[in-house]
Formats: sequence, C-alpha cells, structure tokens
Amino acid sequence: MSNEYNDQLSEHIPMYIRIAMDIRKKILSGKYLEEEQISTEDEIGVEYGVSRMTARNAITQLVEENLVYRVHGRGTFVSKNKIERNLNKVTGFHEDMLSMGLNPSSKVIKFITRLPDAKEQHELKIRKNDKVFEINRIRYIDDVPYGYQELVIPVRLLQDLKKEDIEKSSLYTYMNKLEKPISYANQHMEVAIKPEINELIGISENIPFFKIKRVSFLANNEAVELFHSYFRGDKFSYSLQLSNHIEEEVSE
Amino acid sequence: MSNEYNDQLSEHIPMYIRIAMDIRKKILSGKYLEEEQISTEDEIGVEYGVSRMTARNAITQLVEENLVYRVHGRGTFVSKNKIERNLNKVTGFHEDMLSMGLNPSSKVIKFITRLPDAKEQHELKIRKNDKVFEINRIRYIDDVPYGYQELVIPVRLLQDLKKEDIEKSSLYTYMNKLEKPISYANQHMEVAIKPEINELIGISENIPFFKIKRVSFLANNEAVELFHSYFRGDKFSYSLQLSNHIEEEVSE
Repeated sequence: MSNEYNDQLSEHIPMYIRIAMDIRKKILSGKYLEEEQISTEDEIGVEYGVSRMTARNAITQLVEENLVYRVHGRGTFVSKNKIERNLNKVTGFHEDMLSMGLNPSSKVIKFITRLPDAKEQHELKIRKNDKVFEINRIRYIDDVPYGYQELVIPVRLLQDLKKEDIEKSSLYTYMNKLEKPISYANQHMEVAIKPEINELIGISENIPFFKIKRVSFLANNEAVELFHSYFRGDKFSYSLQLSNHIEEEVSE
Repeated sequence: MSNEYNDQLSEHIPMYIRIAMDIRKKILSGKYLEEEQISTEDEIGVEYGVSRMTARNAITQLVEENLVYRVHGRGTFVSKNKIERNLNKVTGFHEDMLSMGLNPSSKVIKFITRLPDAKEQHELKIRKNDKVFEINRIRYIDDVPYGYQELVIPVRLLQDLKKEDIEKSSLYTYMNKLEKPISYANQHMEVAIKPEINELIGISENIPFFKIKRVSFLANNEAVELFHSYFRGDKFSYSLQLSNHIEEEVSE
C-alpha cells in the first residue's frame, strides 16, 4: 500500500476513527503506558480541532476494543494489555488461560525417560536410579507462542503419563484426576534474555522472558515436578498480595 | 597488556588457577547457569590433561569465591549470583539488603509535594485535593546502582517526612517508628526494557528490569504508598512459596 493510497484513504475515514487510530498507535507502541491516563475529551478536541462529541466517539471506539477504560469523574485510562497471572495460588498455565477465556495449547517437542542428573536428584529428592520424564513443550495461546517449558517428573509418580495427556490437556488436571493434586510449590523468578529460546519458539524479536523455576510437591511432601519455564515478558505480568505476617510454614 | 604478555603470564600461572579462570569465565558469561552442575574432577582431568588433584584445586578455588558449591556425593554446582528477594512477606529494599549483610543506600533525586493525578487518586483512594509526596530515588548497593523508584505517599499520612528520613534509612523503618507499620500490599510485576532508566541510574548496558508496582496499606486499610520500582534483572531474582489453598482474603 503506497503512502498516496493511505492519504487518499484517510480522507474518507471519519475523523473520530482517525483520532482513535492515532491513540491506538500510541498505546500499542508503548507511548502510553498501562494504566496511564490518556488525553481528555476536551484536550483531544483542542489537539485535533474537533468537537467534544467527535472526541468522545474516538474514545468510545477504543473502549469497545478494551484498549482503554473510563473511570467516572476521573478520565480514561489505558487497559492492561498483558496477561496477568496470580501468584497467591499454585496453578498451571493451561487452567489459568482457560479461566480467562483464552485458548491455550502445547506442542510437546521432547518426551523421553532417562536418569536424573545430580541437580534433579537434589531438587526432586530422588536417587540416581529413579528415572524421570523429560518433557519440553512450547506453550501457545490461539497458536501464538507465549512460552517454553522444560519439565522433569519422577516416572515412579506418574507411570502411565503419555505425551497426549499433557499436549491436549494440563498436567495439573491429569494429576487431579489421579487424586495426586499439587499441594504447594517453591517458585523462583528471574528475568532472562534467551535468543535461543526466542528462536526455538519462533519469535523474531529478542523478547526478554520471565524465567520461572518451580518445584511442586504433593501433600505428603513428595516432589512431583521440577520445571524451568520461559514466559514472554511482553505478554505476561504477575500479581500477588503480600502480607506483613510470615505465612504459616509448609514443611518440605 | 599485549597478548604476548598474557601468554607469558599464563605460562607462569599454576595450571589449577588457569582452569579456575576458565570455569569462572563460563559462569560469569552465563555459559553455566545458576544451579547448573559443572564438570566433575574426572572430567576436568581428562579435558585439561591434568591430575585429579589439580582439578580439585581448581574447583576449591571457585568454592572459596562462592561461585560454586559442592554437594557431597553429587558434584559441584554454580551458586546463585543474583540477590534473591522473598515474596512471602511485604518488606522494603533497605531492610532486605541489610538482612543479607549488604550495604544499601538511596539517592533522592526528586522530593516534592503536589496534587495527585487521577490514577494516583484511584490507587491511593484519595481526593483530588489530598496532596502527595512525589519521591524519586536511585537505589544503590555499595555505591553500585541496582534500581530506581518512583514513590507517591499521601502527605496527610506522613506529614513530617523529610528527604533525609528516606535517604539514610528506610521508609518502612520510618513508618514502624511512627507506629504505622505496613500491613499488606498489592504487588504487580512486569519485565521492562527501559533505556532511559539505565541512563538515569548510570548503567551503560541496556539491562532489562523487573518493574514492580506496589500499593501498600496500613492495618486500617488506608493506602500509604504507591510505587513503581525498576530493579535490575541481572542482579535480582524473586522467590516465593505457592500453596494450593487460597490465602485468607485481606479486605482492601
């Protein structure tokens, strides 16, 4: 599409749509931050030389796209455009995404059993002869890659686990069905720049990741999984409530 | 220093020191990850054509530098080289660093009172005439910049707050002295690439940050602070224990 064509096109686009396009671009390019207040109807009116009604129509357009939201008597603010995951409860990616009405899936690119390395023996509290599943999978939402996971599970605990069980559904759902629900987990979070993982999951930009390490336990304190996940930093955020009292200690 | 000089130098350096230098470089450059197992004494022996004793001496050198640690009967692992902050309790940067034996400080680069914007009114549940402190500070450990914070506090709650109170000590300590300890907080965490903040705090590389937004509350549910902090992703990690039950709801 040439610039000339664009110019001709824009002449025939109603002014409120053009203003909405302008503000949308500012939001998606990060010029407006999440939760930042955008210009008021009056300010837009002055800036673009339009009536307050036209300015209001532009904002309404963006509200309908969920890009901004109005707060009565306060103004209009940029919506969160990252998927927010809550850290107050141990949950899996699959359930979390489903509960938000999103469409998660996984592609398992490695599914083997092998002996654990020293670190895995240590983290999972298993012996060097206790075999483990090593499972690597790419996580998608609506076929867009959102993350990558390297998962290690003692074979003894989930002997009948098949690739299909975790490709089409969730490990946590599978464990609940076996009446082995995860009781608690220790989680460690870092920021990681990993060009090789961007490449592996098929993203051309070099996006920073949340690198999540989790060791999960059954109620009887058996370690049931060790994973390292890389979730796209441009797509996810984490939230939690912190309190001033130390949580009741859960024994390991 | 010329390469020739280096070559001559290395000829006179004991082999175990040279091996330690090699492994150290792999750790600091990220070729070995945190908690990853490094080569065994036998493997180092074969790789460098040295005795097991020489290999052991090389590892001992790195153990003494806390770069690696030995696990009896398992092997040698790369230590965590990031400062780990715990998310199971609401704490401040200053106390956290002190409790690890580190030497934190802050440089306040902005300290003003002003009227709150719409977002701050909303987050802090204050009226548009309720003045706030706006405080920006760079956080250091041993005079190395580790982060940056933009802090907003209702003036009404901490009327006598002075720049010195939060430059030499901690806001949370100050509030404890006033018998207004923070009771709980809502925290939101993102990954952020912010070249302007790298520049502001004086880091030449473009390091990704943990962007932390926190709103903290007193026991009576008054919001006492809203901050946005940027902590260096190459220096910090976060850990927490997740449980399967939903935490007792704390009313806001």
